[in-house]
Amino acid sequence: MGCELIKHHCGIIGVWGVPNAAELAFHGLYSLQHRGQEAAGIVSTDGNRFYRKLGMGTVTQIFSSPTVLGSLKGSGAIGHNRYSTTGASSEFNIQPLSAVLRDGPVAIGHNGNLVNTKRIRKRLQEDGAIFQSTTDSEIIIHLMARSKKEQVRDKLLEALDEIEGAFSLVLLSDHAMYAARDPHGWRPLCIGEKDGKYIFSSESCALDLLGYSYIRDVRPGELVLVDDEGLHSHQYADGSQTHHCVFELIYFSRPDSRFGGDYIDKFRRKMGKNLAEEYPDDADIVISVPDSSNTAALGYSQRSEARFEMGLIRNHYVGRTFIQPTQTMREMGVKLKFNPVGGVLKDRKVVVVEDSIVRGTTLRKLTDLIRQAGAKEVHVRVSSPPIKHPCYYGMDFPSREELIAHTRSVEEIRKTIGVDSLGYLSVEKLLDSVPHENGENYCTACFTGEYPIPVEQDEENGSKERYEDR
Amino acid sequence: MGCELIKHHCGIIGVWGVPNAAELAFHGLYSLQHRGQEAAGIVSTDGNRFYRKLGMGTVTQIFSSPTVLGSLKGSGAIGHNRYSTTGASSEFNIQPLSAVLRDGPVAIGHNGNLVNTKRIRKRLQEDGAIFQSTTDSEIIIHLMARSKKEQVRDKLLEALDEIEGAFSLVLLSDHAMYAARDPHGWRPLCIGEKDGKYIFSSESCALDLLGYSYIRDVRPGELVLVDDEGLHSHQYADGSQTHHCVFELIYFSRPDSRFGGDYIDKFRRKMGKNLAEEYPDDADIVISVPDSSNTAALGYSQRSEARFEMGLIRNHYVGRTFIQPTQTMREMGVKLKFNPVGGVLKDRKVVVVEDSIVRGTTLRKLTDLIRQAGAKEVHVRVSSPPIKHPCYYGMDFPSREELIAHTRSVEEIRKTIGVDSLGYLSVEKLLDSVPHENGENYCTACFTGEYPIPVEQDEENGSKERYEDR
Amino acid sequence: MGCELIKHHCGIIGVWGVPNAAELAFHGLYSLQHRGQEAAGIVSTDGNRFYRKLGMGTVTQIFSSPTVLGSLKGSGAIGHNRYSTTGASSEFNIQPLSAVLRDGPVAIGHNGNLVNTKRIRKRLQEDGAIFQSTTDSEIIIHLMARSKKEQVRDKLLEALDEIEGAFSLVLLSDHAMYAARDPHGWRPLCIGEKDGKYIFSSESCALDLLGYSYIRDVRPGELVLVDDEGLHSHQYADGSQTHHCVFELIYFSRPDSRFGGDYIDKFRRKMGKNLAEEYPDDADIVISVPDSSNTAALGYSQRSEARFEMGLIRNHYVGRTFIQPTQTMREMGVKLKFNPVGGVLKDRKVVVVEDSIVRGTTLRKLTDLIRQAGAKEVHVRVSSPPIKHPCYYGMDFPSREELIAHTRSVEEIRKTIGVDSLGYLSVEKLLDSVPHENGENYCTACFTGEYPIPVEQDEENGSKERYEDR
Amino acid sequence: MGCELIKHHCGIIGVWGVPNAAELAFHGLYSLQHRGQEAAGIVSTDGNRFYRKLGMGTVTQIFSSPTVLGSLKGSGAIGHNRYSTTGASSEFNIQPLSAVLRDGPVAIGHNGNLVNTKRIRKRLQEDGAIFQSTTDSEIIIHLMARSKKEQVRDKLLEALDEIEGAFSLVLLSDHAMYAARDPHGWRPLCIGEKDGKYIFSSESCALDLLGYSYIRDVRPGELVLVDDEGLHSHQYADGSQTHHCVFELIYFSRPDSRFGGDYIDKFRRKMGKNLAEEYPDDADIVISVPDSSNTAALGYSQRSEARFEMGLIRNHYVGRTFIQPTQTMREMGVKLKFNPVGGVLKDRKVVVVEDSIVRGTTLRKLTDLIRQAGAKEVHVRVSSPPIKHPCYYGMDFPSREELIAHTRSVEEIRKTIGVDSLGYLSVEKLLDSVPHENGENYCTACFTGEYPIPVEQDEENGSKERYEDR
Repeated sequence: MGCELIKHHCGIIGVWGVPNAAELAFHGLYSLQHRGQEAAGIVSTDGNRFYRKLGMGTVTQIFSSPTVLGSLKGSGAIGHNRYSTTGASSEFNIQPLSAVLRDGPVAIGHNGNLVNTKRIRKRLQEDGAIFQSTTDSEIIIHLMARSKKEQVRDKLLEALDEIEGAFSLVLLSDHAMYAARDPHGWRPLCIGEKDGKYIFSSESCALDLLGYSYIRDVRPGELVLVDDEGLHSHQYADGSQTHHCVFELIYFSRPDSRFGGDYIDKFRRKMGKNLAEEYPDDADIVISVPDSSNTAALGYSQRSEARFEMGLIRNHYVGRTFIQPTQTMREMGVKLKFNPVGGVLKDRKVVVVEDSIVRGTTLRKLTDLIRQAGAKEVHVRVSSPPIKHPCYYGMDFPSREELIAHTRSVEEIRKTIGVDSLGYLSVEKLLDSVPHENGENYCTACFTGEYPIPVEQDEENGSKERYEDR
Repeated sequence: MGCELIKHHCGIIGVWGVPNAAELAFHGLYSLQHRGQEAAGIVSTDGNRFYRKLGMGTVTQIFSSPTVLGSLKGSGAIGHNRYSTTGASSEFNIQPLSAVLRDGPVAIGHNGNLVNTKRIRKRLQEDGAIFQSTTDSEIIIHLMARSKKEQVRDKLLEALDEIEGAFSLVLLSDHAMYAARDPHGWRPLCIGEKDGKYIFSSESCALDLLGYSYIRDVRPGELVLVDDEGLHSHQYADGSQTHHCVFELIYFSRPDSRFGGDYIDKFRRKMGKNLAEEYPDDADIVISVPDSSNTAALGYSQRSEARFEMGLIRNHYVGRTFIQPTQTMREMGVKLKFNPVGGVLKDRKVVVVEDSIVRGTTLRKLTDLIRQAGAKEVHVRVSSPPIKHPCYYGMDFPSREELIAHTRSVEEIRKTIGVDSLGYLSVEKLLDSVPHENGENYCTACFTGEYPIPVEQDEENGSKERYEDR
Repeated sequence: MGCELIKHHCGIIGVWGVPNAAELAFHGLYSLQHRGQEAAGIVSTDGNRFYRKLGMGTVTQIFSSPTVLGSLKGSGAIGHNRYSTTGASSEFNIQPLSAVLRDGPVAIGHNGNLVNTKRIRKRLQEDGAIFQSTTDSEIIIHLMARSKKEQVRDKLLEALDEIEGAFSLVLLSDHAMYAARDPHGWRPLCIGEKDGKYIFSSESCALDLLGYSYIRDVRPGELVLVDDEGLHSHQYADGSQTHHCVFELIYFSRPDSRFGGDYIDKFRRKMGKNLAEEYPDDADIVISVPDSSNTAALGYSQRSEARFEMGLIRNHYVGRTFIQPTQTMREMGVKLKFNPVGGVLKDRKVVVVEDSIVRGTTLRKLTDLIRQAGAKEVHVRVSSPPIKHPCYYGMDFPSREELIAHTRSVEEIRKTIGVDSLGYLSVEKLLDSVPHENGENYCTACFTGEYPIPVEQDEENGSKERYEDR
Repeated sequence: MGCELIKHHCGIIGVWGVPNAAELAFHGLYSLQHRGQEAAGIVSTDGNRFYRKLGMGTVTQIFSSPTVLGSLKGSGAIGHNRYSTTGASSEFNIQPLSAVLRDGPVAIGHNGNLVNTKRIRKRLQEDGAIFQSTTDSEIIIHLMARSKKEQVRDKLLEALDEIEGAFSLVLLSDHAMYAARDPHGWRPLCIGEKDGKYIFSSESCALDLLGYSYIRDVRPGELVLVDDEGLHSHQYADGSQTHHCVFELIYFSRPDSRFGGDYIDKFRRKMGKNLAEEYPDDADIVISVPDSSNTAALGYSQRSEARFEMGLIRNHYVGRTFIQPTQTMREMGVKLKFNPVGGVLKDRKVVVVEDSIVRGTTLRKLTDLIRQAGAKEVHVRVSSPPIKHPCYYGMDFPSREELIAHTRSVEEIRKTIGVDSLGYLSVEKLLDSVPHENGENYCTACFTGEYPIPVEQDEENGSKERYEDR
């Protein structure tokens, strides 16, 4: 996947109790930029008003004016990064979403995908609700608005009771900040602390940047409230049967973020080692598809005779602007992103370690490039199992038909890609690479087709795309 | 008012049944630009999807990209121009407002001011509705969403039944376009026709530009539906007791727009003539405050011995950008907008015809300039009565205390402004200047304090301003 | 010309001896905006450094950022407005042009057109000069750079000695500001004073805005230097045989600017009166093509039986942005700019007063509109003679072939435009309308073909257009 | 230097003989983006006209409009990337610089630094030349403009004869494209070929992207002309005593670019190996400062007992926009760019391989971070010698006083940075790492102070900074 056009899902951040909360939220989003680069937003509050800034682009593009951050006043703030979508409704789906409820305003940012929204949306519309966006966040706000409870916390609990699927969310009210995680714990969300003040973040790398200590993850099925009194926890649902998204460990999360107590980096190295044991080679060198496969490739090389080398140079300038691709550009394709280093590859038997394969089309072009640069043999090793099934819990895979492994055997994939050998890490060895000490369990639905919770049939999705903003 | 910072209210347009409806809507908005220059938007539909573009600025600024108009597809479109506001929530209040109801999307654009929104809004919020904007349009959409009726037309009728105040609106659904006007007929809305196709517009000047014929005004209390079958009228309320905003005739509307069958220009000239009869002079020349007082000044000069002259040159470049005023600029004040023509004014007794006075501060500076340019005497004639009371039906007057005529006699105003004489047109002669053939009646609340319908007390308006967008 | 797409030439301003010179220059340019709306620039100096900001658009568009004016430091500043051009080299021709000479930097802004630049340019290029722009200003700077004189003043005098044609210019050095006008006095340039400080401006309307008193015009053939000691005059050439551009009085200059001691307004009114005497009518009403023909139309009506009326409403929002015209827009044509007032025109014999006719195509469309609005007869009266010849001294007329009067008789023009009668002011009566007290003489070359000084043949103008900026 | 704010010098590209030359130039600049990210420009020609687009920002920012590249017509184009500067004159220094000479226009892009410009500039100014920029390119254009030769080639040769210092340049005329390299060969410039068409590029990585074959470098002292007839070489000066900038091999050039026949990558690996031999360690792991030190670190680890690991994660989103740094941001400092991976570093003895140290302040903060992440010991190994002297040939080092090694011994530097040990590669071993087969010789002035050619004293640089653009 490191070589394909990547669509992460989202990153969220929440800050409470510091004078310049929006500035911290901005930097938090900055360190979570890899989780979504299409749009971002921050909502802050000083207890009286809410201040909001949303925009298309990376966080530095949106918040680059010197006065913008300063105008987001107050000691509470939440922020959201969104991944790249195509087509409909883009500007109106930027989060955090905010609305005025009966007792005051709230704002919400959300990472994941609910699986029972059609049912709820239909019920709400029949009851007279109107929708401005197609985000799951708006569903949650509508449910809260209809709650008869007095407290924001109780309204939120009522909404959490209704929704199903994958979600990690932060919510801001005048007087408190909330975080919640679904009972399966699909998407990450952790808590940081500094001088008795708390933040929430999708990944711990934001804590490092902001100088906060990692306390723990928000627990599956837990609602955490932070106000001027401190941190309050409420286990609103049984979270003992977790289904962490194993793809966060394979690819999504930064290697310098934690999972439980350890760094993601550790599990990726282990995947690489296990991969080398399952699919050894007699190659000269091991190279990675930078940067996402670096650690797995290092791990692989440590169990292999082949030497680790830097065989591909990545151009980090690609994809940062909305340039209209010309015909020439389309022909250049993968070369715009990667250039092989001839001196490293020439006359060598090369193992290429890639973290995952989705469509496979880009990998085919990349391995062609490597061969053109003089490699004698090209062997691909993938540090995760074949992706055969779509994800309904928030990972933006293409349709079933576009997944190269959906109907093909490994040998057929090898031929399609055109390499000398191909090995995928097995599901067993993948699960052997990730921690289980605390009863962690993982969602492997995209590999196995075993979906932890059922998903609504896609009988009518038309209404989602009735608007196009220009 | 011609010399004060002017805030018109809004302009609306609706187009149905032509291939490039959005392009016509754009040009319609262009000719209604005088009614609102802060923001604008267009929503179009091709029967399947809705396409939307909203933005801050004038319509040419928002729609200047060659691809924008082209991307607003379909043969139905509505558009909206908004006047300048300050402060809160500006971007989120741009119209047309659109939302997905149970049976499909609708979009609405609205001119006027409802007077019972607080009550309705509170009821809706208690029932779980959430609000994204502070516009009256959102109230109407919420009422429609909660209606149990099947048809868009019936939902709209149910909503119209609940709302009170001044409104002229256009509404777009997949399969039809609607226009409605409140039973008092406060704000204008007319119908144009060409080759069996119809458009709605705040003023008839848009019809002239688009090449449509003026058919008639939408009647007070009427709902008009246009679909592929043609035009259908429904009188949803008794509209026989009209209260047309007389200020539309004094100042808001363009002189080349129609009111009933005649041009606004005619009534303004008559106001000028009546003014000359009520307050004659022995001056040398009559000048207008361009451009809004031109016709009244011409009318005045036709009943006066004094010759009509161009004594003030207006700089039309002012106010078209959001330039930050510097100190020097503030000192220049009215000079940025008007320059007196020395040769015309020098040693003359001058009558200045102005259409109305709100605060009076700018007029004072302007008459000072005229005197500095050599005028021997300065006499002001106002082609409308003293504004003593705020407007609750959509005209953006300042608070009661800021109105120069609220507590002052005409003689006190004359002294405050510092001119040699001052005459206001009487309410009687104002009403004598405007048509009554068809039983037209007018709202003169800002002059007389007699409000046709009662207005909610302003007990809590806090929630309206809880958001600030950056 | 009031109804045609207008290309004025340029406006220039110079400020010396006040703390915020750039801010005054900005406001001066603002009041000269009618002379050029495509681009503008300001260069300021604090005696040590030069500060520069150039841009495309109107002055408020270019200088709207709150920090821009503040960063143009120092007590000396010059500014320049440029008219709309098409095609080549646009960004690189924005003035003021600045360059580092042997002894320090200078900046120059220029209005007019030199007639011997090809010869000079060729000589300079053969001598090794390189050109960045196609402006006359760059020629002057090159001549100054090559001067062996020590003083900026003497360098400038040497350059003035070489150049021929129409020019009014301001020049800024570290320690002084200069203004010069060609010996024929084609383009205007006046001097204002306040508290012993001086400014230069193309027209006196800028003095009014800035609160400076009009002292006098820079004399033809005069170089004026302003430094901290005051104002110094040097008559560098005989300026007794003036050829003021009479078109400045007919159309270019604002009516509230002065020419000599009187206001332009006065001469335009006189042109209207003379026109009515030369070409009387038996019409019902007289209307102007607003705003440029207003005063002439008023003057005409004062000598006519017909009543002055406002028969055309001008939309001032047109042409302020670089919107791509759509097909619909092109069809709308003149309607985007003018709307006839039906009530004024219907069943009337109408005299339309226009200041000048260039191509005539727009006037034809406009008179068609007037007729469609119900006018019984349409008579056109032009307050200047037929334009038969191109201008080489700075007025941006189209080529000879495009001038409607180049080969046509008045009767042929009348038929082409399609009106009931047509009358042009004669050259004699035009000259009778403008002052001669102080020996003023005028350039009427565009009417008569009598060019006061000869013009280079256009043997090679290719090099001027070798660059296109994107 | 990988961890310091980096200012590369420039990248240049030239394309001739293909229909969409500007598009290829754009992509070439894109692959040379690492050499300069502040500004860029392309000039193209179709034999008749020149087309030009310059701008601030990265190439995708400047050329992102779909119409821009299309408007740069013709089959010849040159392009230029510029590094980040501060302060004066930035917009006016964007290259390629273009000017109209006596016989037609030329455009030039240049990488390097001339050492005798003050003398030439002074002579030119005394002779009447005016300067628009402070670039060396303008000097060259002036020299060409003053040449009495007929041919562009001969004018250029005359100019090359006068200038001294480091330069690689491309020049475009109507009918040919030229490339030249100074006799010492400081800055790189290579030639690519495809189907008989040629391109020039600062580095060969652009050839790979565009699908051109690497032919050879432009030779020191060589002028190469490409026109429709093919490629013509002229050795205008003896180039046998080369002084290639060794820093191109240490840091500037991409590892996948060639130097002579081999890839830069190879020499960096060798530097790492030599470094491990000169300064061995008994550490647990070797990490690089990504990405510029990656290859050297790999090489080091291959000669060391310590294992290569990824201990620092680099955020590639930094520095791509002109965001105003806030106080919080300044405090975050190096953390915005690098995050240590705790699991990798904890309780380990760590060797950090860095390619070079300039000021040392950032490295100190980075090694502090590594220690805070749990590293037991931190040892720094630098794959180049101490930088003790400024560069006058185009590398943007700070002043002598700011260089940490200018007056300090290695032990003093170690203490200043605060690490357990510090080793620099010796000049001998550096030179041992780079090729000498073809008589290559290197400039090591920044390490040794031995400057191959003398440099003008900086007696007057005031005039360079007389302008500030806003």
